[in-house]
Amino acid sequence: MSEKDDAAAEEVAALLADYRVVIEVPLHWGDQDALGHVNHVRYFRWCETARIVYFEKVGLMKLHREREIGPIMAAVANDYRRQLTFPDVVHVGARVTRIGTTSIGLEHRVVSRSQSTVAAEGKSTHVVFDYNLQRPTRVPDEVRRAIEELEGRAFPRS
Amino acid sequence: MSEKDDAAAEEVAALLADYRVVIEVPLHWGDQDALGHVNHVRYFRWCETARIVYFEKVGLMKLHREREIGPIMAAVANDYRRQLTFPDVVHVGARVTRIGTTSIGLEHRVVSRSQSTVAAEGKSTHVVFDYNLQRPTRVPDEVRRAIEELEGRAFPRS
Amino acid sequence: MSEKDDAAAEEVAALLADYRVVIEVPLHWGDQDALGHVNHVRYFRWCETARIVYFEKVGLMKLHREREIGPIMAAVANDYRRQLTFPDVVHVGARVTRIGTTSIGLEHRVVSRSQSTVAAEGKSTHVVFDYNLQRPTRVPDEVRRAIEELEGRAFPRS
Amino acid sequence: MSEKDDAAAEEVAALLADYRVVIEVPLHWGDQDALGHVNHVRYFRWCETARIVYFEKVGLMKLHREREIGPIMAAVANDYRRQLTFPDVVHVGARVTRIGTTSIGLEHRVVSRSQSTVAAEGKSTHVVFDYNLQRPTRVPDEVRRAIEELEGRAFPRS
Repeated sequence: MSEKDDAAAEEVAALLADYRVVIEVPLHWGDQDALGHVNHVRYFRWCETARIVYFEKVGLMKLHREREIGPIMAAVANDYRRQLTFPDVVHVGARVTRIGTTSIGLEHRVVSRSQSTVAAEGKSTHVVFDYNLQRPTRVPDEVRRAIEELEGRAFPRS
Repeated sequence: MSEKDDAAAEEVAALLADYRVVIEVPLHWGDQDALGHVNHVRYFRWCETARIVYFEKVGLMKLHREREIGPIMAAVANDYRRQLTFPDVVHVGARVTRIGTTSIGLEHRVVSRSQSTVAAEGKSTHVVFDYNLQRPTRVPDEVRRAIEELEGRAFPRS
Repeated sequence: MSEKDDAAAEEVAALLADYRVVIEVPLHWGDQDALGHVNHVRYFRWCETARIVYFEKVGLMKLHREREIGPIMAAVANDYRRQLTFPDVVHVGARVTRIGTTSIGLEHRVVSRSQSTVAAEGKSTHVVFDYNLQRPTRVPDEVRRAIEELEGRAFPRS
Repeated sequence: MSEKDDAAAEEVAALLADYRVVIEVPLHWGDQDALGHVNHVRYFRWCETARIVYFEKVGLMKLHREREIGPIMAAVANDYRRQLTFPDVVHVGARVTRIGTTSIGLEHRVVSRSQSTVAAEGKSTHVVFDYNLQRPTRVPDEVRRAIEELEGRAFPRS
């Protein structure tokens, strides 16, 4: 890697320093739409993957495999800052910012490697859902503890 | 159609009565993800189409074809109310709720035919963008007038 | 509908007369890629839905829900005849052309309503798969009979 | 990397030794469908990207940007060998196997890193298309030469 690449990599890392989970996503040519830039819908796919990696780390996906208790999407929002075009690699961070009684709030950030800047930022809320009973259930204590350990701080009980 | 179908169709229509543009979207089996319901990302694709139909009606897509001035996504958010599964048809409404100097605000609503209820609702903000100059530009007067005619009301100048 | 629309609808129907299952798919603006036409990948999504409707009709999806025996994709191919653009509606037919010991062969046809012509045609092979045992299993007799009834002809035992 | 990882990486590389262009694609959770494995449609998206990288290398995408002469999909086929699940990384190779008067034939191979084996293989045919005139045009000599150089062999004139 050249010095220039090093500097860019440092900028990307700095923009995602507060995110405990970061994934790298090389763009596909087909992510682009008829306007010639990456379609806004794709960003949600990337953020979802970052989130699943996060949920896996804190035991929520295992819970879903073993007991059909897992996250269900309640709300999601994205602000778009920059257009993206193929080829590029985006670095996508996810972090938990809120733990409710039955819900978990996250923030996402999409950073373009070629532009060394934030391309999009978003928030989402996920309910812990019992897919057997088809209703929300409490955030399990072990998941809460795992999130607190990963984020390095305690979250207020709401 | 049976009487029951008639009643359901009326409920769907009532839920979208305030939306000037409504499209019908039959779900694909492949819209579903590993959790067995329609993935949240797909809803954004449907809302986008309803929006493009809207933008076409008010002359914004024509402007893009002729002068490369068209909408660019600034922000979008969805709240999810109900899980969707294949097979089903969703009716997706779009309406303008705000016209700024260089931006347009919309609301979207996704109604499930099989459940006769709102499956998701959302908002989005779109900047009118000059793709040649790569910068925002004013909402053209003829677009503003066409929106006001379609919505049947005047929008305050901001 | 005008006489012109009637004539177009008849042409579309004639092109799909040999297909026992036909679905209607309104295109999304976002199905288009940076070349300004519908991306080739989307055609596979539509054919898949037509196929799932077919498999549902002959009991194969029910078998999957009840006993985890269902279709798994072995091969698929498409020939592209015409470019598609938004807005349009495609009519997508599926029919079984071959029943093997553990596999089923299908043909698909995508017809554009606006062009009243075949936009793409394809073939696929699906293995009947026991998802519990993770191996192929025989095409169940009741599925074979249901296919023969739907297609109105007997298929040779291979 | 452990020795085990090294061995796996060597296997992956060996399986793609004959492919001049290879891209790495980390899977998304959302690539999986309701059957719990990666949906067959996604493979086409990855192969497309590998192909675009190839076409870029041999000057065909530049030709499209400058003179609207570029590839258009005529046919594509995939054989599926292994199920894929998230998380995994696939390595996707593309190579040209045939140059016709107005068309180019490619082969693709999808290798799973976690399984160190071929997950899918396919073929595609692309016509060199003049998007202005909306008709096929000859494979430009400089593109032919660039392909021959990349592949390290001459292709028969057809």
